[in-house]
Amino acid sequence: MRATLMYGAGDVRVENVPDSTIKLPTDALLRITASCICGSDLHPYHSMSPENGPARVGHELIGIVEDTGSEVTTLKRGDLVVAPFAVSDNTCQFCRENLQTSCSHPQANFWDGIPDEGGQAEAIRVPLADGTLVKLPVAADSALIPSLLTLADVFGTGYHAAIKGGVRKGSTVTVVGDGAVGLLAVLSAKRLGAERIILMGRHQARTDLGIEFGATDVVADRGDEGIAKVRELTGGHGTDAVLEAVGHMSAYEQAIGVVRPGGVISRVGVPQYENAPIGFGSLFRHNIVLAGGPAPVRAYIEELMPDILDGTIEPGKVFDATTDLNGVPAGYQDMDARRSLKVLIQP
Amino acid sequence: MRATLMYGAGDVRVENVPDSTIKLPTDALLRITASCICGSDLHPYHSMSPENGPARVGHELIGIVEDTGSEVTTLKRGDLVVAPFAVSDNTCQFCRENLQTSCSHPQANFWDGIPDEGGQAEAIRVPLADGTLVKLPVAADSALIPSLLTLADVFGTGYHAAIKGGVRKGSTVTVVGDGAVGLLAVLSAKRLGAERIILMGRHQARTDLGIEFGATDVVADRGDEGIAKVRELTGGHGTDAVLEAVGHMSAYEQAIGVVRPGGVISRVGVPQYENAPIGFGSLFRHNIVLAGGPAPVRAYIEELMPDILDGTIEPGKVFDATTDLNGVPAGYQDMDARRSLKVLIQP
Repeated sequence: MRATLMYGAGDVRVENVPDSTIKLPTDALLRITASCICGSDLHPYHSMSPENGPARVGHELIGIVEDTGSEVTTLKRGDLVVAPFAVSDNTCQFCRENLQTSCSHPQANFWDGIPDEGGQAEAIRVPLADGTLVKLPVAADSALIPSLLTLADVFGTGYHAAIKGGVRKGSTVTVVGDGAVGLLAVLSAKRLGAERIILMGRHQARTDLGIEFGATDVVADRGDEGIAKVRELTGGHGTDAVLEAVGHMSAYEQAIGVVRPGGVISRVGVPQYENAPIGFGSLFRHNIVLAGGPAPVRAYIEELMPDILDGTIEPGKVFDATTDLNGVPAGYQDMDARRSLKVLIQP
Repeated sequence: MRATLMYGAGDVRVENVPDSTIKLPTDALLRITASCICGSDLHPYHSMSPENGPARVGHELIGIVEDTGSEVTTLKRGDLVVAPFAVSDNTCQFCRENLQTSCSHPQANFWDGIPDEGGQAEAIRVPLADGTLVKLPVAADSALIPSLLTLADVFGTGYHAAIKGGVRKGSTVTVVGDGAVGLLAVLSAKRLGAERIILMGRHQARTDLGIEFGATDVVADRGDEGIAKVRELTGGHGTDAVLEAVGHMSAYEQAIGVVRPGGVISRVGVPQYENAPIGFGSLFRHNIVLAGGPAPVRAYIEELMPDILDGTIEPGKVFDATTDLNGVPAGYQDMDARRSLKVLIQP
């Protein structure tokens, strides 16, 4: 079968690899019908050293069940399913608390931690299939597929940012970052009733989509100018919640600059730093809360899917390009150069 | 009048200073009847450089109203009142949200930020008296005074740690630090219904009081050994909440080591660091929340006072020594050397 491999920074190739197959009785084997490139894939695309490669990549996917292990009870051949970016049993104490990204099962993992499988490929073996996969009540060629695919990561991640940011009816919110997750954090904040949603981003095609998703204001400036603009829009105090959907230190610093006393910085961009300011002068003085982490998207799928199925929301609008597997390396280049917001893959 | 001045690290003196007097129509003048030394006073006692001194010190006090400005409406001469460690108008939007430590009034401040006043003294001018002071329904020589004095800071601060840590019925909690705030965080966690309260501390007289206040376990080890012990007590996962009542980096690192996935580190020890680990390997991977800050103790006084008045709780047990003003320098030495847990001052 064919699959995408990252050999190092800037070096993505599509090659033949051994076929994925059932290995454990709790596995399912999927033929992937829709996948995509994630903003978080760009982090290794910028920094991965060749000795860590070649590595299979891709962690967002929809597929058709081709085969199941003997202990899989909820799925059968032919089912169309969506796979969250984290494998979980959905029964342990953490899963029951809706923290599937901390599932305590020995096989629980992120796709990026499973070396011989990846979502940017023709097929994939899914461990803990009953816990991980969610059936989709549409056909593999449905027009809803792009929106349903966002349930695998970016929509659930944006929603997690808003939930952990405590966004509710009447909240004021700043979203840092106009990538797919940031835009879907806007959509999520709107869905939760936020009154004011300030989107910080500089790419007009993206911020226009942000406005369509519910942003009430766009701030294109960054750094001190961006902070001053947000404070100007909020009576000097900043917003109740800041949803940080980038992961770079500059985005965290931006978040500190625009959060209101007693407010929450909710991070879902994977931090590209370990140490950062949290002392008296940054978080402590005004009781700022720091929240967020890898989104337990599995927890949100049933909640978010109905609005997609009935057309209330269309998170799939974050896809502005489509390719087959051959086009994946170019897709990385396009996303890295910001020519594409998010690339859908039809293997 | 006589007052305590800090001249630099290790150098505390009691001297004659100009009498405190009413300066603004919203001021009240108090004759201080009970005050104390705070664990946070030990931070400048360790590190203050002489060019920043001499500075008035002390921010926890009970006193009798001697005089009031023309605009003070809720207090009169002779009232016995407790003063929180932060001055606030108690009417601004932040005060109404119970975040009095972020009061937006121009005169709002911490006592430590008001250069010509301090609580370890014979008298004090209290700005924004109507907003700041709370009347006490007892006499100045009541046996309840030590417990009521804890409402000025340490009890409210321990309670804030527990509230911001999300402690509720059934919670598991670790308290890092066996100082007065740590012990009162134990009492607060117990009051909020925590099922298991692990106190990390090494001084048996203090941890014994912690057990009396509700600690179910004491871990005397620190560092990796301490972390291993707490994890052993909690099925390997750590506790839902960690209340960090110290402020040193080692206490924060301890907190990261013992917090459960999805749990909260709630800090009320004033951080003696600015940068610290918050990336993938510390907070992010398991959705750890970082909360806390200077406690809006004003918000908690009415809630906590009844249990003191009816004898249900006795937070004043954290005082294990009493002195007059002359004994204040020795009180600092005793607290610094951990010969005293907390020193009550009767000016």
